[in-house]
Amino acid sequence: MITLTRPEIEALIDRNLAAEAIEAAYCALSSDQVTLPPVGHIPFPGTDADCHIKAGYIHGDPIFVVKIATGFPSNETQGLPNGNGVSVVLSAQTGAVRAILHDEMRMTDIRTGIGGAIASRLLARSDSRKICIVGTGIQAREQVLAHAALLGPGLSFQLWGRSPEKAERAVFELSKEAHITVEPDLQTLCETSDILITTTGATAPIIKAEWIAAGTHITAIGADAPGKQELETALVAKADGLFADFGPQAIDHGDFSSAIKAGLIKPEKIHDLGAVLTKQVSGRTDNTQITIADLTGLAVQDIAMARIVLDRIEAAEKSGD
Amino acid sequence: MITLTRPEIEALIDRNLAAEAIEAAYCALSSDQVTLPPVGHIPFPGTDADCHIKAGYIHGDPIFVVKIATGFPSNETQGLPNGNGVSVVLSAQTGAVRAILHDEMRMTDIRTGIGGAIASRLLARSDSRKICIVGTGIQAREQVLAHAALLGPGLSFQLWGRSPEKAERAVFELSKEAHITVEPDLQTLCETSDILITTTGATAPIIKAEWIAAGTHITAIGADAPGKQELETALVAKADGLFADFGPQAIDHGDFSSAIKAGLIKPEKIHDLGAVLTKQVSGRTDNTQITIADLTGLAVQDIAMARIVLDRIEAAEKSGD
Repeated sequence: MITLTRPEIEALIDRNLAAEAIEAAYCALSSDQVTLPPVGHIPFPGTDADCHIKAGYIHGDPIFVVKIATGFPSNETQGLPNGNGVSVVLSAQTGAVRAILHDEMRMTDIRTGIGGAIASRLLARSDSRKICIVGTGIQAREQVLAHAALLGPGLSFQLWGRSPEKAERAVFELSKEAHITVEPDLQTLCETSDILITTTGATAPIIKAEWIAAGTHITAIGADAPGKQELETALVAKADGLFADFGPQAIDHGDFSSAIKAGLIKPEKIHDLGAVLTKQVSGRTDNTQITIADLTGLAVQDIAMARIVLDRIEAAEKSGD
Repeated sequence: MITLTRPEIEALIDRNLAAEAIEAAYCALSSDQVTLPPVGHIPFPGTDADCHIKAGYIHGDPIFVVKIATGFPSNETQGLPNGNGVSVVLSAQTGAVRAILHDEMRMTDIRTGIGGAIASRLLARSDSRKICIVGTGIQAREQVLAHAALLGPGLSFQLWGRSPEKAERAVFELSKEAHITVEPDLQTLCETSDILITTTGATAPIIKAEWIAAGTHITAIGADAPGKQELETALVAKADGLFADFGPQAIDHGDFSSAIKAGLIKPEKIHDLGAVLTKQVSGRTDNTQITIADLTGLAVQDIAMARIVLDRIEAAEKSGD
């Protein structure tokens, strides 16, 4: 049994290799080649803490994964991270435990970034160069790193945050990794973007329909739970193409839910990334369309991440590294 | 994060301490002080292998547990154990991973034995001395060890197995731990027992109603999945008291299910061990009653086992051992 810590795991992840594995996982999901039991949830009575248990098996894979993720908001008062977790990787041939990936949520952050960049690469205009980020948190950073890895070179990034100080800090920290500047005006950021990535925890829409020009692609990451919303309902209604990592989850959790509840779009209009990747449906069909990808995060991404980490460890062991 | 192997875990388990913790867990379950998400199940298409994910939190505990258990019957052809698994222990205060208990199912075997001995101690006549075991597998052994620890000294054990060779071997291996002999005739075994413990994987009843004398207590362990049955339906109907570790599960999985389907008993007749322990209901009320405890195994037992292992490790660390 291999046990790896967060820095060891991080050092083994190549975002382009991970993107290949995650794309394959999206395709498996859209081809009914995945077994995913319902997510287990443990709330802790009298607190706002909880634990989610996500497990799954991509048919034919040598491994399967059980990911345990905790969220304890009160940790912040003790200077501890809110989120924590571990993935258990087991052999799909013998059931033996192959690895404990004690990543403390790091793989989740990275795979969420990669999911966003996969969506942008698949759905944005091929001449997209200006990538605009709304938000200053961990996903603002991860989206820049993943887009730079998957869509670069030649990209320019702009970032807006509600707090100018946090925006400056994020841009400073990312400046070694990408060509990035702060844009102080959200409307200007939205109006001038080729690809707009929203990563906030907003519970009321902050992106207006009238700000989004023809040809823009939006990857919406922030709204990952019921009650969260970043995009105006009118913007979702106006878009030419609506996509999700997994439609049923986006309908329940994400930015598309309020547009569906308002009767402005039909759930059938939403297509999965895996269905586009496997050419069951089209993505963008011309350069004037507005496309939106609403991503809420999937267990198949976690499986793919665990597999590439394990593959690299085992390759290193075989070569005697 | 502490990581323990199977022999390390086994060395830390004291069956009497574990029984205290498991009894407290049964009581918590019967007092609605437990959060148990539905069991996650991953079958592996085209094989008879599967994985179960059981998680739970006993309110007020410092920890909670996610147990991952796999069953791969084809492992036997390669000389590997069929069952495998790991328990992840997390802090209920911070969500951090406290321990990885890589017990390869050993804790499950031990806690199943202890559950049986708790039921026998709670429900059998107080003058019970002759304990008879049906079966020769791991649970036959675990039940002897747990009953010897919890009900001894002064007990005598007899064991019957379909294979006389396997019965002789089991008795030989257990003879250091208990006063035990083989009984070659199943009917005699049943007729002369104070406590009868059934541990086979039988799918048709092997214990006849007419063999069971007044005053006998039966702990039925073997029937832990739909389709398994060790006790004649008429025996279940004839018993004065019916008990389970968790009634709804016993009704679905265990020996009581066929008596209910035949309309011979009502589900309300079945009481949980926790309800007896907390004196919400009576157990045995006189020495002539036949009592049956049908045990199918619970996640709260796994939580209790993980907690006593962790408690002992931490006590040893504090004392500088």
